[in-house]
This record gives sequence, C-alpha cells and structure tokens, in this order.
Amino acid sequence: MSIPIQQIAAAVDADRLWTRHMTMAKFGALPGDGVCRQAFTAEDISARRQLLAWAKQHGYAAAADAIGNLFVRRPGVDPALAPVLTGSHMDSQPRGGRFDGIYGVLAGLEALNALDTAAAETQRSIELVAWTNEEGGRYEPGSMGSMVFSGALELSECLALRDADGVLLEDALAAALASTPGIESRAFNFPIAAYLEAHIEQGPRLEAENLSIGAVTGIQGTRWFTITVRGDTGHAGTVPLAVRRDALQGAVAMVQALNELTTDVDDIVKFTVGRFDVEPNAPNSIADRVVFTVDLRHPDASILMRLGDAIPERCREAAPRCDLEIIETATNLPCEFDPAVVAAVEDVARELGLGCMRMPSGAFHDAQHINALCPTGMIFVPCRNGVSHSPAEYADPKSLAAGTKVLAAALYRLAS
Amino acid sequence: MSIPIQQIAAAVDADRLWTRHMTMAKFGALPGDGVCRQAFTAEDISARRQLLAWAKQHGYAAAADAIGNLFVRRPGVDPALAPVLTGSHMDSQPRGGRFDGIYGVLAGLEALNALDTAAAETQRSIELVAWTNEEGGRYEPGSMGSMVFSGALELSECLALRDADGVLLEDALAAALASTPGIESRAFNFPIAAYLEAHIEQGPRLEAENLSIGAVTGIQGTRWFTITVRGDTGHAGTVPLAVRRDALQGAVAMVQALNELTTDVDDIVKFTVGRFDVEPNAPNSIADRVVFTVDLRHPDASILMRLGDAIPERCREAAPRCDLEIIETATNLPCEFDPAVVAAVEDVARELGLGCMRMPSGAFHDAQHINALCPTGMIFVPCRNGVSHSPAEYADPKSLAAGTKVLAAALYRLAS
Repeated sequence: MSIPIQQIAAAVDADRLWTRHMTMAKFGALPGDGVCRQAFTAEDISARRQLLAWAKQHGYAAAADAIGNLFVRRPGVDPALAPVLTGSHMDSQPRGGRFDGIYGVLAGLEALNALDTAAAETQRSIELVAWTNEEGGRYEPGSMGSMVFSGALELSECLALRDADGVLLEDALAAALASTPGIESRAFNFPIAAYLEAHIEQGPRLEAENLSIGAVTGIQGTRWFTITVRGDTGHAGTVPLAVRRDALQGAVAMVQALNELTTDVDDIVKFTVGRFDVEPNAPNSIADRVVFTVDLRHPDASILMRLGDAIPERCREAAPRCDLEIIETATNLPCEFDPAVVAAVEDVARELGLGCMRMPSGAFHDAQHINALCPTGMIFVPCRNGVSHSPAEYADPKSLAAGTKVLAAALYRLAS
Repeated sequence: MSIPIQQIAAAVDADRLWTRHMTMAKFGALPGDGVCRQAFTAEDISARRQLLAWAKQHGYAAAADAIGNLFVRRPGVDPALAPVLTGSHMDSQPRGGRFDGIYGVLAGLEALNALDTAAAETQRSIELVAWTNEEGGRYEPGSMGSMVFSGALELSECLALRDADGVLLEDALAAALASTPGIESRAFNFPIAAYLEAHIEQGPRLEAENLSIGAVTGIQGTRWFTITVRGDTGHAGTVPLAVRRDALQGAVAMVQALNELTTDVDDIVKFTVGRFDVEPNAPNSIADRVVFTVDLRHPDASILMRLGDAIPERCREAAPRCDLEIIETATNLPCEFDPAVVAAVEDVARELGLGCMRMPSGAFHDAQHINALCPTGMIFVPCRNGVSHSPAEYADPKSLAAGTKVLAAALYRLAS
C-alpha cells in the first residue's frame, strides 16, 4: 500500500539529523569547526564504528566489501530484488568541514529512519553506503571506494599505495576493517536498481537563487596529475645561478606555463595546484625535488582531454634543465545522470513544495562511478557562500532536512 | 721555546681526523652518505656528547654558555690572557653532508691534539668552540650561537622560537644542555685574542685551481626573509578562478617577480627560495596559506640592501589579492676579515708547501659574527664539485688534513 510522500517527508527528524552531524564532526575536529578525518585514520575508524552503532540501534544489518565500503540495509518486501542505494563518504579533506560527504551518509540514514517512522514498505531493499576514501588527500586517487566497487580501479593497485608517512594502504585498510568486526562481507559490483546521493552543493548557485534543492544533471570531468620535478641541491650562497638545476624554480615555471595553457576567459576550465612538497625544504639549500599536483576540470570531454594531454610537453618546455615525471592519478570523464532519476528528484521536490533547479556538479562525487552501473542521480543542498573543503563550510539544519526529505521520498519511489 | 711549524704540521694525524668524521657522520646518518643533524635534536646531542668524550680523553676542560655553544680548552702558559678561538658548528642541513661545519670542529680538536703531540707550548690558551645552530633549518636564524655570543641577537628572542612541530627552542636547548652535565658555565662575549675557522669551501674554485688552501678574505652579505601569503581555501572544482584568492598562485607569482628583481647578468646576486610550505596542501583544495623563504646574498652591502628592501613591494604587486606578511629573519652585512689573520694563513700555507689562494666566502659562517669581536679569519679546503648541503658533499682525507695542518700552525703562531 502506497503512502503519500508528504508523510515520509514529515517523518524526517531535523534535530536528530543535525545532532548526528555534530557527533560525527567530533571525530577529527579542528579548531574553528574544521574536520580532518582522512581515510583509514583513527578518526575515520571512529566514524565507521559510530555509523554501525546507529545502524544496530535501528536493527539494520551491516556489511563491508574488501576496500572498506560500508553497507547498511533496510530490507524490502522482496529481498531478492536488486536494492536501491544511497550514501556518500565519511572521510574529509585534511582541513575540511562538517558536511562534505558525511551529509550524504547521514541523510541516507535519516531517510531509512523516516521510512521506518512512516511505516513505508518498499518492494526493493534500500541500502545506505559509506564509500571509502572519496577525498584522496591521504591516498590518491579520490573516489577510491566507488571506483574499486565499480571496477574502474583494481583493488590490488590500491593496496600497494603508501601515504606521506610511508604507511601502506593495505595495512591501514586492514585496521579499518578489523575495527568493525562481525559484519557480513560483500562482493564488489553487486546488482543495484538505482543510486541517489545527497551532498552539499560546494558552490554558490542554490544560495544565490534562494532554492532548497539542486537536481544534479551530471558532473564535469576531472584529471589529476602528480608531477615530480628533480634537480640538484647545493648551497644557496655559492652555486652560480647559471649552473643550477633548482627543482623549485623548475616547478614554479611549470605552474606558470600551465596557468597559460589553461587560461579561459569564460572561466569554465578549473586548474588548481593544491599540493606542493619541496625537498630538502631548507632556506639555504637549493631544492632538488618538488612534487606538485594538478587538478584539472571541464564539463566538455574533448577540451578536458586536449588540455590534460598538453601538460607534459608544457612542463618540459618550462624547465628543460630539470628531470620530470608525470603520473596521471585519476581520470574521470564528464558524466550525465539518468534523466528518470533527475526527473524523480525534481518531481518530489515540487510535490513537497521545495524550490528546485537542475544544475551540473563542479566537484566530482562517488555518483560519477556508480553512474556506469545503474540509473544514478544526486541531490544538492545549499551551503553558505558556496564554501567547502574548509573549516568555514556550513549548511543550516533546515537545508539539510529539506534535502533529506527529498531523498527519503525519492528513495521510496525508486524502491517501490 | 718556539718550534718549527713543520713539526706541528707533521703531528696532525690524518687517519684520526678522518675516523672522527666518520664517527660523527653516524649521528643523523641518511642513506647515501647524507646527514640530518639539526640543532638540539637527539643526533645533535649525540655529537655534543661525543665531542666532550674526546676532549676528556685528552684532558681538556669543557664549558658551555647559555645558548649551548661548547668550549674545549687547551691551556696556555698564561691562562689569564685572552684565548685564541677556533671551531665551527656541528649541526647540519636537514639533508646535509658529512663535512660542512663538523670539519671546523674536528680540525680544531685535531689541531689541539697535534700541538700536544708536538709538545708545542703557547702563551695563550687555545679554545675549540662548537657554535650552536649555524644552519638554521630547524630554528631561524642560522648562526644563532655565534650571534647570541657576539651580542647580535638576544637570547630571550631565541628562547621563544618554535620549530615546525611546535617545539619551543627553550625546551630543546634545555635538553641539549642537560645532556652534557658537570661542565663549566660560560658567559657570552668573553675576551678573545683571535678567531680562526676551518671549513669546506662549498664552491668549486679550489678544486678547479688544484689548490689545497683558501685564505678567506671575507664573506658576502646575506638577508633572509620569511614570506607568508594568505588567501582563501575552497573546492578546486567549483570556485571560479576569477574570484579565487589562491595563496599558492600568489606565492608563485611572487617568486617570479623576485626572479626578475634579482636578475643579474654577472651572476653575482644569489637568490634562492629553498623552503615552500603549503596549507592545506591537498590536491583538490585551493591553498589558503603558503610560507616561503628568500635567501638573498651579495658581496656589496649597498646592492644587498637595495634588493632586499625592494622585496615587499615586488611581492605585493605580484599578488595584490593575497594578504602578505614579510619578516626579515637574518641580516648579515658583508664582512672583511683581519688582514693580519688572512696573511698568517697564507704565510703558514706557503711555509708548509701547500698551494693557497685568497678568496671570499659565498656562504655565511659563524666567523662573520666573531669578526665583530676580534681579529678573525677562515681556512677553506676544497670539496668535490663544490657541492655542499647535500648527501653528495665530499672532501678527501688528504685535503682535510692539509687544512688542519695550516690551522694548527696558524693557531700556534696566533697564540704565541
């Protein structure tokens, strides 16, 4: 028996949702509302255990796959049917905020709870997923959990990665898995009927338009590169500049050359150098090694490919004296979400009386990889000043609840 | 009764000198002959204890002052006379070599031993000094020990410094002082008759000319700056470039502007950015803070002052959107050594049959600060390819011994 989605929306408990956010924000709390909860750290493990504790309170069974993605199941009438999935990630940037990622997980959990409260039965099971290591700050690439799940990345490649302190991902992952004992083991890439992910917008548009809901139409493409520049160290006071192979000066010239390559009067190309590590990194030693990252994004696949492909030559030309190694650590082509899922979000928002617009996503999300497996969509909610990846990131309780109402109602329809 | 300096030179034990270098190189050893022995670390403390153990073996009394400079005394006939000082520093760059600094200390110790072996009495006492924190990689400024000793820097200012891990210099210094208990406490700036410091050249000239000894005429000036660039962080995929305040891009533009400022067709200006720290330093977060260092050197004081004074404005112009804080952490004006000490080094080298040239120093040294207190000079020995501040730094046993012979003989003359 079908029930009105208004009844489901009314069952969303905004206070519980907010309180859970504040509880999770304690795991890795930084001064000024920041959060540092990188994949497989003690803070991430605390969040994993907390999520499973809440699942247990509500009687939901939990499972984990071999890359540490967590699944929490609200059974449907016919458990043999492929489930509908919802979720996001619980890891954060090294100096991130309290909402990016974790919102999609807690909104998903609250949606399950609201369906319980409303006594809303679904034919399909609904599963909440917390994808492993979406941010990629500790181990690249980001979206690791959803990529391994979808088959876009091999588990074995990930296991061999080391973080900046030399810790092997295999060991860090084993510790995370061991911290949630006694739950079911899950295979990768099991059949899914649909996937719907809630997330803060991470941009200024919904706030500017005073709208509650973004029905996300797709995600711009991303290419990540790690560029290692090698030169020779030496004494800052004695080595003539004419004979130096200064890795820092080489890297600076490369960044300038890539700024030129990616210049775009329409401001659509997004080019960012976010990480820049120098060795030996002492005031009076010439640098002999710099490792920096490039984050390049564009909604048009052909432009994204052309610009990214030009990076190695531009870097070589900019600093011909230095040695260069360029590794592409992630390639996410632009994607378009399933029109039926986008429409479902839009319809539900309208029926609930919430202002909604269609919009693309500037950030990448796990949904990008699940889109290859099943009909997929996303729900955005506004965040203050469009700020994310920062302790200043903020979304108000009402906005978080509005997105969760749409999520719960849309999941109900997708699973019925 | 005076003895021939050939007899003193013959008493220098090249094997003992080399073995002591290799012993010291174990404290902070890095792969490939590198050394990381920064001020007040466990490795530095091991070196301090080793030096005092050798001093004790030879019956020399030891002392320390309040910044941790160590003094080892070979008494003269008239202990009331101001002593002649020799020495250098035992700390290294974070990825330094086995000879920079430590050579001047071990050459000084070997000179005392050679004078003992040759039964050479001196009127004045000769004191070996190991200056604290010459490199400045952990706590800026470098030459800290000799600057505090000479009065160019206040002890209280140093005590309040913190290293990158937040460790207070006061605490690190207290641990170093506690590690050498039971030695005399020494005042700063006690009367000194003369100061002579042996060091590897850290440049290519002696090797190119096939000469054993550099009689150092003076030291070019140095100005150090620490430049903090602040912007706003945000998501690499969503924040339009037009509104970004990207601290990394700001710092890159500043480095380019300073490259232009310091361009010198004669290659006399030395401009180096050696340290560059980014926050949050994640691939897809726009940087909101970069701290980088400038090391600027020139032998002409007026040019050094003009270029250094232009740095703040050039930086502001290069990145007007970012906030900027510039601190000058060290100012060492060019100095000229005492002609009599320079001549003494040259004379001794000639009398011992060792090829010698007069030359300025490109690197700064503790001698620069002691030059303000008493007649001062330095002895350079060649190092392979002019390389220093690198694990590849190398000086052969014969070169090290030749410099020590000149040092021992010159100290004998200066103290007689």
